[in-house]
Order: sequence, then C-alpha cells, then structure tokens
Amino acid sequence: MAVNLEPPRPEALLTISGVRLGIARAGVRKPGRKDLALIALEEGARVAGVFTRNRFCAAPVLVCREHLEEEGPIRAIVVNTGVANAGTGREGIENARAVCAAAGKLLDVPATAVLPLSTGVIMEPLPVDRIERGLPDCVADLAPDHWASAAEAIMTTDTVPKAVSRQALIDGRTVTVTGIAKGAGMIQPNMATMLAVIATDATVGRNALQDLVRQAADTSFNAITVDGDTSTNDTLLLVATGHAAHAPIVGEGTTEFAKLAEAVTEVARLLAQAIVRDGEGATKFITITVDEGATRGECLRVAKSIAHSPLVKTAFFASDPNLGRILAAVGNAGIADLDPARVGVKLGDVVVVEEGGRAASYTEAQGQRAMKPAEIEVRVALGRGDESATVWTCDFSYDYVKINADYRS
Amino acid sequence: MAVNLEPPRPEALLTISGVRLGIARAGVRKPGRKDLALIALEEGARVAGVFTRNRFCAAPVLVCREHLEEEGPIRAIVVNTGVANAGTGREGIENARAVCAAAGKLLDVPATAVLPLSTGVIMEPLPVDRIERGLPDCVADLAPDHWASAAEAIMTTDTVPKAVSRQALIDGRTVTVTGIAKGAGMIQPNMATMLAVIATDATVGRNALQDLVRQAADTSFNAITVDGDTSTNDTLLLVATGHAAHAPIVGEGTTEFAKLAEAVTEVARLLAQAIVRDGEGATKFITITVDEGATRGECLRVAKSIAHSPLVKTAFFASDPNLGRILAAVGNAGIADLDPARVGVKLGDVVVVEEGGRAASYTEAQGQRAMKPAEIEVRVALGRGDESATVWTCDFSYDYVKINADYRS
Repeated sequence: MAVNLEPPRPEALLTISGVRLGIARAGVRKPGRKDLALIALEEGARVAGVFTRNRFCAAPVLVCREHLEEEGPIRAIVVNTGVANAGTGREGIENARAVCAAAGKLLDVPATAVLPLSTGVIMEPLPVDRIERGLPDCVADLAPDHWASAAEAIMTTDTVPKAVSRQALIDGRTVTVTGIAKGAGMIQPNMATMLAVIATDATVGRNALQDLVRQAADTSFNAITVDGDTSTNDTLLLVATGHAAHAPIVGEGTTEFAKLAEAVTEVARLLAQAIVRDGEGATKFITITVDEGATRGECLRVAKSIAHSPLVKTAFFASDPNLGRILAAVGNAGIADLDPARVGVKLGDVVVVEEGGRAASYTEAQGQRAMKPAEIEVRVALGRGDESATVWTCDFSYDYVKINADYRS
Repeated sequence: MAVNLEPPRPEALLTISGVRLGIARAGVRKPGRKDLALIALEEGARVAGVFTRNRFCAAPVLVCREHLEEEGPIRAIVVNTGVANAGTGREGIENARAVCAAAGKLLDVPATAVLPLSTGVIMEPLPVDRIERGLPDCVADLAPDHWASAAEAIMTTDTVPKAVSRQALIDGRTVTVTGIAKGAGMIQPNMATMLAVIATDATVGRNALQDLVRQAADTSFNAITVDGDTSTNDTLLLVATGHAAHAPIVGEGTTEFAKLAEAVTEVARLLAQAIVRDGEGATKFITITVDEGATRGECLRVAKSIAHSPLVKTAFFASDPNLGRILAAVGNAGIADLDPARVGVKLGDVVVVEEGGRAASYTEAQGQRAMKPAEIEVRVALGRGDESATVWTCDFSYDYVKINADYRS
C-alpha cells in the first residue's frame, strides 16, 4: 500500500569503495527472517551521527554516542531488528557492548570501533547469544554490492526496502553516496524506529562530516512525520570512507562541501520521503510548505501543526478539501502575533484561502480535484517574512488504526 | 457509543433563578432539527468568558469579547448550530452583530447586551435571515426549566446531550450551578467546537467572576483533549444572576469563593469529561495524571504528550499495555533535563514502570487486565518535584477515522 514507492533496483545501487555489507537470519525474535546486518568499514573511514532527542533513548544510542566520542576509528556497524534494546537499563548497555565486542572480535577490531543499532520491541532483553551466533554468517556474506539485501535486513513493518544512490563531481572526481533506511512510523512492535546509514567515498574532515550529517538530517529525516512520535532508537549515521582521491573537504563554506552536501541531502531526503510513502496505512504522500515566515522555526512549527493534526490527516484520507481544518491547524501553531488576515493557502495549483478567508475564485469542485491525487502539495503563506520550511507526511487511514491497534493481537 | 455517558435526567437539572431558556428549529443548515437556543438573563446578571486561543478565531468569538469588554449588562446568549461563522471575515462579524440586534430587539435590550455563539461548518456565511425567523420561537419557548432541551439544541455530532447541576452552601444559603455543553471533538462539519454555558444564582463581583471562569476552565475544558485540535469557536461562558441572597463574593482568597469555585469547577469538569466520553469513536475514557513534576506546566505537557500520541491512543483502543509508547510520549514532552531513571508509570493499580524500566513485579497479564476496562487511569511520576496535573482523553478507534473521513461524503 506504499504511495508511489518501488523497491530499489539492485543495479541502481552503487557500491561505496571501503564499505562491505553482510546479512544473516539470526532469529533475534522470530526464526527465518533476515534480521541482522553488518556493515564493515575499511581503515580510514570516518563516521558521524544524529540521534533521537527522546529522553528515553535506547542503549544502542547511548553506546553509539559513546563510541563516536572516543577518538578511535569506527570499523563496523551492526544493525539488528526484532528487539530494540530500549528501556532495558544497565543490562541493555552491557548487551549492546557485548554485540560490539562480538563483531569486533570477528573483524579483529576493538569493541569501541563498532556502532550498534537496534529496532524492534522495547523493554525486552536483547538476545545477545543469538546475535553472536548470527554474526559469522554476516561476515561470510560481506560484499560491497549487498546494499539491497542490507536494506531488506533492517526492515520491520516496512513493506518496501529503502535504498538510493547519487553521485556528485567534486574536485574533478566522481564521488558516490549510497544509503539505506527503515521506518514506517513509530510502531514495530511497541515502537519502531527510523534507522538510516548513508555512506560516501568522499574524503571529509571530522567536523565537516558532523556538520554534513546535521545539515542533511534537518531537511530530510527531521522534516518528516508519520504520526508525530519520535522513537527511542532513531539514528542516522553518515560514513565517509575517504577512498575518492580528491582534496579533503574540511570547511563548511566551500563549494566542495556544498556539492557533497547536496548529494548527501538528496539521498537522505529520498530515504526520508520513502519512509513517509511507506507510512503505516498511508494512501497519500503530502508535501507541506510554509512560506513567508519570520523565521524558519515558525514555518516548521506551522507545517508540523498541519502535518500532526489527526483531523487534517483524516481529511486527506477522505480527499476532502477541508480548509477549516488546515486553517485551524495554522492558528494552533502557537504564533502569538500571527495575523490571520494575511494568511494564504494553496492546494496543488488551486488558491483556496486568500487573506485568511475562502478565495473568491475558489470552488468546492476545484478543491475536490486538488485532493484526489496520491501526491498532494499544500502551500501556506504566512505574510510575515521571507523564511520557508517543508515537511512531508502521509494521511491517516483505517489501516493506521488497524496496524497500530492490532499489532500484538 | 459514548463511554459511560447517559443523557441527563431532566429532573436532575436544577433551574437557576434569573435564567430562562428557549429553543427553535430554525433550519440554519438543515431543516427540522433543533438548532437555535436563546438564553435570557434577568437584569443584574454578570457574565464572564474564556475563549479559543486559535489565531483564526471566529466572528462570534470576536463579538462576544467585544460585548463583554463594554461595561453594559449582558441580557442574552444566542447559540446556533449548523454554521460556525468562522473564516468569514468582516461580513461574518456583521452577521454576528445582526443576530445580536435581532435577539436584542425581541427582548428589548441593546444588541451589545447579547452574546452570540456559533458552531458548525466554517467558511460559509451565517444565514442571518433564518436565525432571525427562528428567534421568535425561542422567545415563545423561554422557561427556567428548559436546560435539557437547550442542551439538545446545541448538539452537533454529539450523540448524548450534556448537562449537569450542583449545589453549594455559601454564607448559609444554597447556591445552584447548572451548565450545558457540546463537544465531540473538533469536527462537525469542517471543525466543531466546544461550547459551554454555566449559570449560577450566586452573587459574584466582576473580577471574581472572571477569576472563577478562568480557574474552572483550567482544570476542566483546558484539561481535555479528543484529538489535540483547538477549534476557532471554543467558548465557555459563566453567568452569575445574583439572585441568591448571600453577601457578594468579591475576592479570590475567601472561603465563599473557594466553595463556589468548587461547585462551578465540578460542573465544568463533568461537562468536559462528558465531551471526552462522547469523543468521536471513543471506546475508552482515559484519565492521565502526572505527579512529581517541578512545575504544573511540565506535568500538563507530559500528560498532553501522552494524550495526543496516536500510538498511545490506538494502543488504548486495542487494550494493549504498550508501555513503550507511553514512555516514548513522556520522553518526547520536551523536558530537556528529565531523568528517565526516575520515571514511574502505573496503569490503574498495576505498577508497570519503575526507575524508567519495566517493574520487576510486572507481568504482561497484569497489564492486559489493566487495559481492559472502559475507564483507565494512567499515572506517571516524574521524580522531579511536587506538582501534578490531570488530563482526560479518549482512545483512537476505527470510528474516529470513519467519522472524520466520511463526514462530507
């Protein structure tokens, strides 16, 4: 039921020199399914990450952060589905470290060179023994062209694997960016998780890489919402192997940084949008752009107020051009000095609201036509300034309730 | 489908000396249904109100505020359903004033002595002529014991009329409080509205009355949420006729104020809870109390974060003791220095989370038993202080999506 989302064609996924991927069926929670992925990085790779802001962040998030803070190199990423290792206290941290140690031993690197990612049920202990038993299969499977199978192995309630590649020309050299992600709303089974790993062969300094991943996240994973919830495990990792033979990118202000940022951000955005397209029960993909704000922050607040409104989301499901619900969401975004008389709204090409009221030219038939397609663009103008922000979301359908209410039954 | 909510027995509704109510079938939007109510107040009555904070507030809200700001007496309240007169610009304000003028003329009071309340479709012009034609029927119907029929006349998607009475002993005199409300989520048809009118025969000073209505709203209508949306028309009016022969209540700090506040707040709370019980598609009534906060504000934020989470709400619908979703909502409430290791959660009598993790004594069977009843209490302890807040909400069911998606089809 994903909205305009096809599985990636394996041949469209480009390898990243210095990155190999291998998967296994470790039976973490259920036997037989691909549930473990190992990403091995050659020496010299740098990794930066952004993580959930949920105060209940999971053990693997804490361990990832810890290992990234240390100055030592990162040589592997281990991703398991089935159990999120969240809400598991001190034992959870020890379990996450045990997985790192096991992977490190197989690859002959220290435990602190391994980053653990988990997604699945929370408040259940991580079955470290099963993961340990599965890791040798991952190692045996390591290959540079296993991005597609890794994208499959990290799925939970996703219906379509998510992977994409882009290239950029930097300093006369072709640089490649490939990423995989999983999402589908914060659900599986007690909550799910957005996990994404993006890798490039570009050569990037430590600080520039951190700036790059932050910047890419802001207009991709931080600009999507399925149901407004942030999981305990959300993680985006950006790997730069440094195999491309261009001059290292060190400063944020350079043309080379900008070019690489564009490619990385596009990969991040396509993955993030794929998560929305595959949102639980989604039947519509909705782009909400808010223009003419005084700050980008307030534009984002208005866009998210619309994107989070269950009334707006059910109206999209029903293809109902329910202007009142959109305007009410704008009015509820907490901008104290918003002047309603300056607000305009467009649905696709149709001007529906002008100066805070129904546009003179607007007809219900136009609105209904604008709401029909599977991809809808909402544009709000606040009449307060020059800033903008865009958020992507999906509608709320019967299936959203069904998937989330029936999960454990 | 309302959760443990019966229509009020007319004999349980106590009259308020100085208040008469009359209704009509004005055909505001559809013929034949009770859609207009007039509440006439004897000279000497005082009225205070609290209104929606939505920046797109409707014309009747603007006119109500304007008339309350003037020093003149308020002698009537007119409530229509069918059309909300919201998003209607200058014409909407003129229409609201025209309704006040028409009611004023019939009652021989100035237009500024009338408060207009509207609920229904937005962005459609108010059919003033139909309301004008209906008002004489309202006047003919005026009687002190028509609270039950007034409660019916203000319903939109409500399935049960909402009205309640309480009494208090003040200064040796029995004082009565009776109120009516409509709600059912922000829905009907483009959005609906919480409207409530509470009247008492107590004698209350102007400022004390404003304090009273604000205080009552904070722990009643401002502490409920069906879907997190605030409509353009939300209004609570509190009338004090001054017919009870006790010494006037003027200060907030007095015992008499406290006694009256208790009665008014209880009426407001029961009406507010009735709105939740009759929430669209509701199958569960959920009380969320957050204790041990540093401030009441942060407790309220955590409680609303839980109450607004679609994942939590669908889990309640499914009777699924989904601790992860509740904890994630706590973690998402934006308390930057929250220590997860101090957080505790109870579902009914069952301790489910202790020190941020699953309680040692907890079993899934206990959790499932706690989630079965139609009334569920969630208690969260933040381990940060002595403040508390309570919020009431309902679950998210298939019917919520159905009602909101199918409305206009």
